[in-house]
Amino acid sequence: MLENIDLSRKLDKAEYKKFKPNLDLRLGELQRRAKELNIPVIIVFEGWAAAGKGSLINELILPLDPRGFNVHMTTAPTEEEALHPFLWRFWRRTPTRGRMAIFDRCWNRRVIADRVDGLIKGSALTQAYEDIRSFERQLADDGDVIIKLFLHISKKEQKKRFRELEKDPTTAWRVTKENWKHHKHYDQYVAAVEDMLAETDTDYAPWTVVESHDHRLATLKIITTVIAALERRIAIVTGKTKSTVKPLPPASSAAMPAALKTSVLDAVDLTQSLTRPQYERDLERYQTELRQLEYQLFLQRVPVVITYEGWDAAGKGGNIRRLTQHLDPRGYNVVPIAAPNDIERAHHYLWRFWIQMPKAGHITIFDRTWYGRVLVERVEGFCSEAEWRRAYHEINAMEQHLTNFGAVLFKFFLHISPDEQLRRFREREHTAYKQWKITDEDWRNRKKMSQYRMAVEEMLFRTSTPNAPWTIVESNDKLHARIKVIKTICQGLRKRLK
Amino acid sequence: MLENIDLSRKLDKAEYKKFKPNLDLRLGELQRRAKELNIPVIIVFEGWAAAGKGSLINELILPLDPRGFNVHMTTAPTEEEALHPFLWRFWRRTPTRGRMAIFDRCWNRRVIADRVDGLIKGSALTQAYEDIRSFERQLADDGDVIIKLFLHISKKEQKKRFRELEKDPTTAWRVTKENWKHHKHYDQYVAAVEDMLAETDTDYAPWTVVESHDHRLATLKIITTVIAALERRIAIVTGKTKSTVKPLPPASSAAMPAALKTSVLDAVDLTQSLTRPQYERDLERYQTELRQLEYQLFLQRVPVVITYEGWDAAGKGGNIRRLTQHLDPRGYNVVPIAAPNDIERAHHYLWRFWIQMPKAGHITIFDRTWYGRVLVERVEGFCSEAEWRRAYHEINAMEQHLTNFGAVLFKFFLHISPDEQLRRFREREHTAYKQWKITDEDWRNRKKMSQYRMAVEEMLFRTSTPNAPWTIVESNDKLHARIKVIKTICQGLRKRLK
Repeated sequence: MLENIDLSRKLDKAEYKKFKPNLDLRLGELQRRAKELNIPVIIVFEGWAAAGKGSLINELILPLDPRGFNVHMTTAPTEEEALHPFLWRFWRRTPTRGRMAIFDRCWNRRVIADRVDGLIKGSALTQAYEDIRSFERQLADDGDVIIKLFLHISKKEQKKRFRELEKDPTTAWRVTKENWKHHKHYDQYVAAVEDMLAETDTDYAPWTVVESHDHRLATLKIITTVIAALERRIAIVTGKTKSTVKPLPPASSAAMPAALKTSVLDAVDLTQSLTRPQYERDLERYQTELRQLEYQLFLQRVPVVITYEGWDAAGKGGNIRRLTQHLDPRGYNVVPIAAPNDIERAHHYLWRFWIQMPKAGHITIFDRTWYGRVLVERVEGFCSEAEWRRAYHEINAMEQHLTNFGAVLFKFFLHISPDEQLRRFREREHTAYKQWKITDEDWRNRKKMSQYRMAVEEMLFRTSTPNAPWTIVESNDKLHARIKVIKTICQGLRKRLK
Repeated sequence: MLENIDLSRKLDKAEYKKFKPNLDLRLGELQRRAKELNIPVIIVFEGWAAAGKGSLINELILPLDPRGFNVHMTTAPTEEEALHPFLWRFWRRTPTRGRMAIFDRCWNRRVIADRVDGLIKGSALTQAYEDIRSFERQLADDGDVIIKLFLHISKKEQKKRFRELEKDPTTAWRVTKENWKHHKHYDQYVAAVEDMLAETDTDYAPWTVVESHDHRLATLKIITTVIAALERRIAIVTGKTKSTVKPLPPASSAAMPAALKTSVLDAVDLTQSLTRPQYERDLERYQTELRQLEYQLFLQRVPVVITYEGWDAAGKGGNIRRLTQHLDPRGYNVVPIAAPNDIERAHHYLWRFWIQMPKAGHITIFDRTWYGRVLVERVEGFCSEAEWRRAYHEINAMEQHLTNFGAVLFKFFLHISPDEQLRRFREREHTAYKQWKITDEDWRNRKKMSQYRMAVEEMLFRTSTPNAPWTIVESNDKLHARIKVIKTICQGLRKRLK
């Protein structure tokens, strides 16, 4: 998941200066409102060494009333702390109602550092995740707002920063041998962090990844994240208690710098393409291989789930056709997903997907999926905010259950540019045999593209887990897209089947 | 936990006939209301072989409209089911909104049968518990009422029933070799069941143990449990939606047969006593041993938590005094718990207990505890129903965190009879140097004794876990009570310190 995040974005000084003062005022105002309403707030900073935690915490607290918060450093436990149960020192530091507790690293320590160091594994690790969720849920149930920030920099950037710190004698002491050791094992840490994000990203305590190569960008992302979380909670609390506090205008995301928005899709290179001869050669190669793999996975009783999401007109149908063209039809099943029928609506939204899951040795291909909950249902208001927020964790739990059983899960998001979509829509309108493919709804969805995009970005972040990662398929060129999908599946199955 | 349950109670035919017809009518009525309100209902039957699941399920469904429910048997998975992820077959059977699904055994299979058979352990077992909680929470969040019943009979009773079935040629086939094998390992099953009850008893899907030696008693307990759960949910739903459905009068527990109430306390033999010479001999012996153990646990860095709950005037103070009399005061701390102060009230209710937890090698004695949440706060309405209901699981999570860290936890409930309490209250009033001990509040609490009793019984059931069991201390005779506490602690510590 982390490797998909675009770390190259920057915020220029002029834009930063344009937004910063108002955000600071807003943050101060929200802090006062939260205090009046007795809302306790927990803000967690995690991230790589040299990602800038210290100075970014500073940026966050500068606009705040210093009488209203505490900053807690979490280093190795003191002797006193080591003699107590792990959560003791964090329970002690939970904020009083109306106050903010800011944690520089926190209770995730055990599932990152201790895990990479081999101090915790197996059922103790599974239990540690449960302890974290249970701790956070208890506080959230008690009214705490929990904001968790992960400051992300690349391995290369970390090296550069260590070197710079070392050059200056006044900062050289800050880079320890241990820092370099951890740097060397950056990839192991990435694996641990991704696991942690998947296990502990919940509706009551969600994670936000902060792209931290650019200090200004990171600063504004942190401040706007905190503002959004406080606004949401204040709106809920005042709605409930019918308090006289004036409702707050939302920190409109449209008015914010574009660089601030999470940017997995922007980093996608949509110019990738294949020539027809390349395509035909590859297609034949992978279709042949896939058919062989299909027999193998039948013999080895491996269940396979392939899911397609993507923009309207991204080419899902054609892609699925090429994928299945040479497969043995007894071994796979394509499930197209439309609006739920009456029976489906009378069950939990995941029910209709559960009942379609393949048996061991078989392949099920979903043309649109359970992700509808956090895409169309979210954007169109077909479910409540609480419902789609809790869906991320529900979906992750379902997918984890599938992969724990031994299933291989492929999740493809077919991405095209807005211009390419427009071109395809027009083509459909003007081509007699394609007209059935374009409806008024497609045009309506297109108008809501920015909302859909926000939903897609959040989905890609919250549900790209180590056991079930998303593959973004550059689909402006259909030939490239088809090969990327079938190739990804062949590689994944080959690996699984040994 | 299970061994504390009084299995000897019976319900005579006359009493059964007095209540049964009205309960049946009520159940039918509630089924119709639930259907109108689109409430899905899941009822789970677990329990020992020969506990009578089949005939008790029958008793439950007889008053119901057969068009509104399905009964699902969970035996070993079919070939089709074995080829799917574990939860698949249960997801398929989740009820449509407005319908009831009754499960004869269910998704707990993995953490009982499979566990005892050694098919699952370590992190897979920890994950299985999380899968169960996650599955049940997802359904509960979606509006499902989940009622889980565990039909309990003793090992002796099971043997008797197997023998009876074997005697009759028409039923002999029902007792298999495997049944006898499981019977032989009854104690291992008890351990697995108690673990399961502790791990999966939650506010959204609580367990009820059904004493099943007496068929009439079991029948009424099941029906009243289902009625109470439906009434609660219907009240919430209609409260929310402001439906025109008339509010239902509660199935008043006062009007119910006494035998129906959970009966851990009734089984307690309060006549136990010690003579003064026995007491003095034992007291010296255990006080001396405890002091030695105190040093040992300091050296071995074992933290110890000792908690006291009990009726007013049950003798907590005097008991604690004898316990600590010869201890090294540097090694222990007594924490008296009264109503929370302002700072404490401004935190999560567990906060003030967390911060007092002993460090490794030390003893903390709590005179009244976090159980106040489910006792006084519940009865006096100091917290909401949702809050005390979720507290059981929160408390179990905290205690599990303590014992996972290596702490030894003792939980004593000092039990006296209402008559003995009255005698002590009067004595306090009439003895000058004891008058400070009796207040108007004590008399007020005494008037609510039946409500407190219900709360105590539920607490003892929901929070007596394998890692942190309750010890009920018969305290009509103070001498016996003091020796039982100190002896229990010595035995527990001896075992822990090897």
